[in-house]
Amino acid sequence: METILNPEKSQWDLLCKRPVLEKDNLDLVVKEILERVKNEQDKALEYYSQKFDSCPSGNLKVPAEEIERSVELVPQDLKNALETAKKNIETFHAAQLKGVEKIETAEGVRCWSKNVAIEKVGLYIPGGSAPLFSTLLMLGIPAKLAGCKRIIVCTPPGQNGEISPVILYTARLTGISEIYRVGGAQAIAAMAYGTETIPAVYKIFGPGNQYVTKAKELVQLEGVAIDMPAGPSEVLVIADDSAAPEFVAADLLSQAEHGPDSQVVLLSNSNSLIQKVRNEIAEQLAVLPRKDIVSGALENSKSILLPSLDECISFSNCYAPEHLIINTENSNALSEKVINAGSVFLGAYSCESAGDYASGTNHTLPTNGYARMYSGLSTGSFMKRITFQEITRKGMAELGPVIEKMAESESLIGHRNAVSVRLKTLKND
Amino acid sequence: METILNPEKSQWDLLCKRPVLEKDNLDLVVKEILERVKNEQDKALEYYSQKFDSCPSGNLKVPAEEIERSVELVPQDLKNALETAKKNIETFHAAQLKGVEKIETAEGVRCWSKNVAIEKVGLYIPGGSAPLFSTLLMLGIPAKLAGCKRIIVCTPPGQNGEISPVILYTARLTGISEIYRVGGAQAIAAMAYGTETIPAVYKIFGPGNQYVTKAKELVQLEGVAIDMPAGPSEVLVIADDSAAPEFVAADLLSQAEHGPDSQVVLLSNSNSLIQKVRNEIAEQLAVLPRKDIVSGALENSKSILLPSLDECISFSNCYAPEHLIINTENSNALSEKVINAGSVFLGAYSCESAGDYASGTNHTLPTNGYARMYSGLSTGSFMKRITFQEITRKGMAELGPVIEKMAESESLIGHRNAVSVRLKTLKND
Repeated sequence: METILNPEKSQWDLLCKRPVLEKDNLDLVVKEILERVKNEQDKALEYYSQKFDSCPSGNLKVPAEEIERSVELVPQDLKNALETAKKNIETFHAAQLKGVEKIETAEGVRCWSKNVAIEKVGLYIPGGSAPLFSTLLMLGIPAKLAGCKRIIVCTPPGQNGEISPVILYTARLTGISEIYRVGGAQAIAAMAYGTETIPAVYKIFGPGNQYVTKAKELVQLEGVAIDMPAGPSEVLVIADDSAAPEFVAADLLSQAEHGPDSQVVLLSNSNSLIQKVRNEIAEQLAVLPRKDIVSGALENSKSILLPSLDECISFSNCYAPEHLIINTENSNALSEKVINAGSVFLGAYSCESAGDYASGTNHTLPTNGYARMYSGLSTGSFMKRITFQEITRKGMAELGPVIEKMAESESLIGHRNAVSVRLKTLKND
Repeated sequence: METILNPEKSQWDLLCKRPVLEKDNLDLVVKEILERVKNEQDKALEYYSQKFDSCPSGNLKVPAEEIERSVELVPQDLKNALETAKKNIETFHAAQLKGVEKIETAEGVRCWSKNVAIEKVGLYIPGGSAPLFSTLLMLGIPAKLAGCKRIIVCTPPGQNGEISPVILYTARLTGISEIYRVGGAQAIAAMAYGTETIPAVYKIFGPGNQYVTKAKELVQLEGVAIDMPAGPSEVLVIADDSAAPEFVAADLLSQAEHGPDSQVVLLSNSNSLIQKVRNEIAEQLAVLPRKDIVSGALENSKSILLPSLDECISFSNCYAPEHLIINTENSNALSEKVINAGSVFLGAYSCESAGDYASGTNHTLPTNGYARMYSGLSTGSFMKRITFQEITRKGMAELGPVIEKMAESESLIGHRNAVSVRLKTLKND
């Protein structure tokens, strides 16, 4: 972890840059997978499952009995934890459902908008070293609250061809029963194009490795929506002398364990705090099981001393972190100045893990500087907003001439005429 | 306009297909333009402006005096119309600004979200046969309401190198003063990469021809956000015997005049209404100035007879039209069943032109079936949603063990540890 003392503002842009991953070959590999799934459908999925996941071929769709069996296989204390997390996530995401408010923009002109669920959505849950059931909570709960009619899950099986019981249990808990044993770019292709077994969906959600991310990017060009562009996970911590160095160190390390390409940044107005955190990191790192991954991530990471906490916030807005922890005395006041961030954690006890699992906010957030223009996932991400308008005879009588004038000035005489034929009938009123 | 009587449900998907435009060459041409602007910046913009717009080279940025001069050049009746439209659009879009509501998801766990403006946005206003100042209202008003700090406009100049005074006046009316004389794919490239004169922005909005659309699609892959994918404009009208055939005909024709690739669909439960509308179209078409464009669009268009109005709504949900006009006796009740549409117009007097210009709703809407998963533009499109959370000692004491359990089950021991170090300090409470 490099320490940088009071960098010039002209250096900030460079300090905010994320490492760029090599992409050229990726593009070709993923295009080939997409093409093959489009043409050969289920057969291609079987082929890639055996090639990449080295799992036995078998039924793509997880049978209901297998999902039910998970109830016995998941330990009770984890079930209880999942229940609590679900309740909190549900509470926060249910509050995002909006009622319809009709607005009279002018006399006789009523306009409103209504959020309507996207009918078919696909959730991708990565496999890898551990089953990421928390991601299924974060995608499944808002999809259900939104009212999506068909929600499918794709997730890669383990070497034995089985999907972790915790994933199956979490799906069951959120009310999802359509689960397919397929991962990687081929799973994204299946959800985009449809196969004999897997239905095509309108929007695809969920994180994944470079192949999955590239596949989502490519199918988006073919008319499927995706949740957001993705990059490696990241945290930026702003801390002052009031912060406990062991809390700050633990927060930085928790992010670093995601992968060697994770980004971890510490900003402070106190060099002494930075030094104490570095010492704590060394100590805590020694006992972490994922030491190699964490050390890799720390190599890309930076501690930066800045003249004031206000400058720390300015730097953070320039960086636009996925997760921002403000562990300072006046964290609430400082947070008012946040412009670019995915999710913000305030005060000593709001660690990022809380948002990752159970506080209620969503953990699917914009990385790689995308927080400048993208939002994290919400219930609204599973819906689209339709506008409505209803104009009375009186409304048309008032507004009609305005529309006629504007349409005519844009040389759209057909548009003007749609009003004129109506105004003509109103003359008899 | 083809008439189809009671098609089988199995035919619906085919009937809902939009014509696919040839794309291969487009891709190469646009990629070359993007590359050149990225490398040569302003010089490339000058080159393309002379090549495609055959306009004299000159200052890219429109000077303040030129914008001010528009006040004298735009006729007073059009100014009045613009004022009224602005008021209505502002009223509807201001209602979309949300306050912050803090939610306690569990004791001591407070979560909330806040919408924050995207700092830099670029609005593209096409040139072409007529100045589309209404699009500038539809993009500029929500951008201003959202509070975007830097709002720039790119629009192609006419052959004389000048931008229409109505465009300049509308910019001034919405409070926008940074206007650049450049159009086409090169304008999109300039806003995505930045040049010596034009700043790079975080999100690009606005309609355009195939080149503009392709350029937006490509720069999106390089980290700039765009409003939505685009295709030719379209309307679907559902009408029954209660509808005035001349209104329906005028609505279909108004959409058809956008371009020969526009899509126009009429659904009805009455064959007699369909016939009357066809006769009216022939009559009204005769006096429209854009007769050739309209005739071209009508060739791709369809009138479809279906057994009931409920079936009409089902077909419309399958088609997912950009604009949906429900001109029937029970339009309000029917509208409750709309699942996929951009904007809906209810009753005899709610013509699409009203929403295009002045009712208050936005006219930037998803085309080409994208209404299945995309929303039209709103004030929220110019903002991103940041989530916040604040957990007290008490909140951590309660929630901490849940997080520990879940993190451990995902084999993320660093995540667990961020909670454990905190719980340890609480033991002394």
